[in-house]
Amino acid sequence: MPEAAESRDTNNMGPSQPEAQPSAASQAGAYERLRALVAEDLEAVNGLIRSRMVSEQAPLIAELASHLIEAGGKRLRPILTLAAARLCGYEGAHHQLLAATVEFIHTATLLHDDVVDESARRRGKESANILWGNKPSVLVGDFLFSRSFQLMVETGSIRVLEILSTASAVIAEGEVLQLASVNTLADDDDIYMRVIRAKTAALFEAATQVGGVIAGVDPEAEAALAQFGAELGVAFQLVDDVLDYGGADARLGKSIGDDFREGKATLPVLLAYRKGDEPTREFWRRVIVKRKQEEGDLEHALVLLEQADALTETAARAREHIAIAKRALERFPQTPLRQALEDVSDFVVARTL
Amino acid sequence: MPEAAESRDTNNMGPSQPEAQPSAASQAGAYERLRALVAEDLEAVNGLIRSRMVSEQAPLIAELASHLIEAGGKRLRPILTLAAARLCGYEGAHHQLLAATVEFIHTATLLHDDVVDESARRRGKESANILWGNKPSVLVGDFLFSRSFQLMVETGSIRVLEILSTASAVIAEGEVLQLASVNTLADDDDIYMRVIRAKTAALFEAATQVGGVIAGVDPEAEAALAQFGAELGVAFQLVDDVLDYGGADARLGKSIGDDFREGKATLPVLLAYRKGDEPTREFWRRVIVKRKQEEGDLEHALVLLEQADALTETAARAREHIAIAKRALERFPQTPLRQALEDVSDFVVARTL
Repeated sequence: MPEAAESRDTNNMGPSQPEAQPSAASQAGAYERLRALVAEDLEAVNGLIRSRMVSEQAPLIAELASHLIEAGGKRLRPILTLAAARLCGYEGAHHQLLAATVEFIHTATLLHDDVVDESARRRGKESANILWGNKPSVLVGDFLFSRSFQLMVETGSIRVLEILSTASAVIAEGEVLQLASVNTLADDDDIYMRVIRAKTAALFEAATQVGGVIAGVDPEAEAALAQFGAELGVAFQLVDDVLDYGGADARLGKSIGDDFREGKATLPVLLAYRKGDEPTREFWRRVIVKRKQEEGDLEHALVLLEQADALTETAARAREHIAIAKRALERFPQTPLRQALEDVSDFVVARTL
Repeated sequence: MPEAAESRDTNNMGPSQPEAQPSAASQAGAYERLRALVAEDLEAVNGLIRSRMVSEQAPLIAELASHLIEAGGKRLRPILTLAAARLCGYEGAHHQLLAATVEFIHTATLLHDDVVDESARRRGKESANILWGNKPSVLVGDFLFSRSFQLMVETGSIRVLEILSTASAVIAEGEVLQLASVNTLADDDDIYMRVIRAKTAALFEAATQVGGVIAGVDPEAEAALAQFGAELGVAFQLVDDVLDYGGADARLGKSIGDDFREGKATLPVLLAYRKGDEPTREFWRRVIVKRKQEEGDLEHALVLLEQADALTETAARAREHIAIAKRALERFPQTPLRQALEDVSDFVVARTL
């Protein structure tokens, strides 16, 4: 955990230093540019995903899985795997198997998350647990998870299997830790950071790391790719937690205030709670810890978050993690691919603007 | 699917041919004898299971997992892995990792099954989903599943990883197929057999097969071990489906009539449905397909199963699969270990007596 980064004064990250901020124009198309650079690989990955999510035994599997997989997810994680491998000069095709693996693990966790969180929407559509029920969502998640292991086994690389099986375990640990701590208002960010490093950043980290491993890079380059993914993943989750209180519904494909209604003590809430006077703290205790919510509470929460600068501070933290992520890429050749990865990193944070 | 075995006249398997039946005495202690033959290995496996189910991040994981893992499961599947490896002359320790893997996969599927089936009891105790809720059961299942992959990766054997990751996918397919077909009264056993081969027999099959693989046996011996496990697994599930209508509550650690209440069209039900007159078929349609059950229905179902000889016929089918399983062992040296595996196979069916 980058203690230094997190304790740094966040004021010097604001718009008073415009030279540190990428232009809006470069951010807007960043994702599309990165995607274009791996377009051929990505098409192969989409083919793998479509063919491997099918079960001859149980047609329901492909029906449910495709609802989620075809619903316009950005494929950010598999694209990171493809880009990391190509950045390291890889010319084979095994990174496609790994990218599909990563997307299947991600999809499996989404299916189980939505059951656990009782979510009603995902990627702008009704979620699978609402449409088909919890039971198929649990079992199809298990299937995709197993398929992901079959895919990675096909690479024949034990090192890759170590990394991805460990990441899967860490993700589950993070989910359980979150479940045990979600309605707790802590006085520090320790558990919150552990949860997001595990439940979100671990898969980003593994996604980029295995791209390097399959390309046969040295341990230092592998570690740099892992750090890039991990810090990007932390930033991604921080921004997600900001957007839950402020993003446009259509853009995110999910409702605003989901975290609030579930009483999730995300970083914005923790920051506002800590800075608040006693009535404010009592409010947060009622809605988060006791989960006794009334009409108008979300609106009041938004006012308190604004007063405490909690959303801007969380976004500033995200930018610090992005800065670390980008530094990790400095050892790689300055190619259009590396530039696109840096721009996408900025774009992840730009989502809060 | 052994069509020949299943269409064979089952009358010649009855007590009129006592020489084909093992003595009650040899059956009773069979499991304990097999267990004793791998006692040292099993102790190491239990140590692995205890240490690997722990998560430093999330203590809830070990709490929930140990509730199930320590609840007196027989460890039949890991014992089969240990015995298969030793039967093939294996002298290393990797089979212990595989045995722990198999138990973790089994435990993960139990946790998810109980969520899907809304079961209240498991192994004579309240089930985890009742005690902790569905959410931790789903997530701890995911954790154990991931851990199982970490364990098998430690063997470094890609062939073993192929077999076990494929088995995991097949299990999930079987569960989904069951979900889609459970309340259907089919006129043949095709889907029922596909379900039990996938959801139950696939793990038995992988458990014995990887024991041979890790010992480095030739493909024919590997296939024989796989067949032994698969046929034993089919018999095990057939007997389980009989016991749901007849076993002693205490012995099974779960309630009688669970399948009935869930409207599961297991083989006994399918047999009674097919042999029944129109009022009988209408009864089965009401309780299984429409799931409209009234007081006294379970008792009436038991009478109909008895009239149709459905439980004895299902048990006879199980004995046929056991016969195939035992034949698959004939190529291996006649050691106490092989004898114990044969006796345990008989014991699996003897549970219905």
